[in-house]
Amino acid sequence: MKLLYEGKAKQILEADQPDQVIIRYKDDATAGNGAKKGTILNKGVLNNEITTLLYDYLKTKGIPTHHLKTLNDRDQLCIKVAIIPLEVIIRNRFAGSIAKRLGVEEGRISPVTIKEICYKCDELNDPLINDDQALALELVTKAELKQIYEYALQINRELCELFHSIHIDLIDFKIEFGKTSNGTILLADEISPDTCRLWDSDTQERLDKDRFRRDLGNVEAAYQEIAKRLKERMGF
Amino acid sequence: MKLLYEGKAKQILEADQPDQVIIRYKDDATAGNGAKKGTILNKGVLNNEITTLLYDYLKTKGIPTHHLKTLNDRDQLCIKVAIIPLEVIIRNRFAGSIAKRLGVEEGRISPVTIKEICYKCDELNDPLINDDQALALELVTKAELKQIYEYALQINRELCELFHSIHIDLIDFKIEFGKTSNGTILLADEISPDTCRLWDSDTQERLDKDRFRRDLGNVEAAYQEIAKRLKERMGF
Repeated sequence: MKLLYEGKAKQILEADQPDQVIIRYKDDATAGNGAKKGTILNKGVLNNEITTLLYDYLKTKGIPTHHLKTLNDRDQLCIKVAIIPLEVIIRNRFAGSIAKRLGVEEGRISPVTIKEICYKCDELNDPLINDDQALALELVTKAELKQIYEYALQINRELCELFHSIHIDLIDFKIEFGKTSNGTILLADEISPDTCRLWDSDTQERLDKDRFRRDLGNVEAAYQEIAKRLKERMGF
Repeated sequence: MKLLYEGKAKQILEADQPDQVIIRYKDDATAGNGAKKGTILNKGVLNNEITTLLYDYLKTKGIPTHHLKTLNDRDQLCIKVAIIPLEVIIRNRFAGSIAKRLGVEEGRISPVTIKEICYKCDELNDPLINDDQALALELVTKAELKQIYEYALQINRELCELFHSIHIDLIDFKIEFGKTSNGTILLADEISPDTCRLWDSDTQERLDKDRFRRDLGNVEAAYQEIAKRLKERMGF
């Protein structure tokens, strides 16, 4: 299979149909926009599994996604999209870079759900931008941005409820969207402990990539715990 | 007169009336959030004069301001307000920090007028924030933010027209707003070559604080040129 693109955590491979791609989940892990590099054993397998569970759940709630089917323990067959160069972040609580940037203590609940967009551009270090800047850079149209925010807020509501039912607090998450050849916007990329902050509701233990970023140990076990609780919840 | 507050470029002094203050314009100049410090001869006098001309103009256009009257060549009598901790920035063209941050060449015209807000907090280096973050930090209410943006866009329209008539391109500017004891929002602080980027329409020569920031020389002459053109335009 021809490699079309290689990202930090995934490869995009050519599929049989020209409007489809195969997404392969790797074990490579990076943090701080590539400043820290490493490998998390089985991360690709676990993130493929977790993303599949979450995408299948979101599909039942009416969210359109690029995911067609999961082929094996590392590969997904997906609709080919042009990724919109925005990282869309939703925050229910302050944690990580934003807490530091805004001088707020880690874990404080936000009185409003915070929507953020960052301009996906490695050379610029994925800067936070606002809506006007996104429009000025012509990364997205006003109507597309509105649609993206609506999906992002709905995804937040659905995932908060789902994670709550397995005793996980969804602190924040990052998603990406893509556009098909006919302009339809689809949820793309992954949703996993690489892209969410997930804290055990009782102990507030981190069950996400912060274990890697902050050298907390037991990284693989945390990802496994998320997969296990989700599978139990889904009846597997 | 009792000193109530001393900022980088101005002092706030007690006035006779408890709901008023005297604002004194200094010659001190800083750049890069205080990283670069210096003095620009007569800057206080020129910025007091320019701010007075621009505020008097904006008042005739219906913008409510804190400015009551200019007392002498360095002092203004103003309504006492609580400054809303936001730097409100309007950009017609990309220049300075934003051009670098977003990878855009200096001077490019933006296809949309860009509104930005930064959280006024020296320790955090006045970070760019978005609307949700401003609400989450409870710096402002949703209604106040809407009002502030409406004023900022109107001020941009009025000032673009005014500066155009004296052959100056208004590239961007920073304004601040304050709240009176009864909650009314007023334009506050200054509008001057310290807080605007002003380029000669023909030569694109910088007639603003970038001459100080970038060591271009003739700083005082640039401020004098702005004052001179404005006074001629206003019929003085």
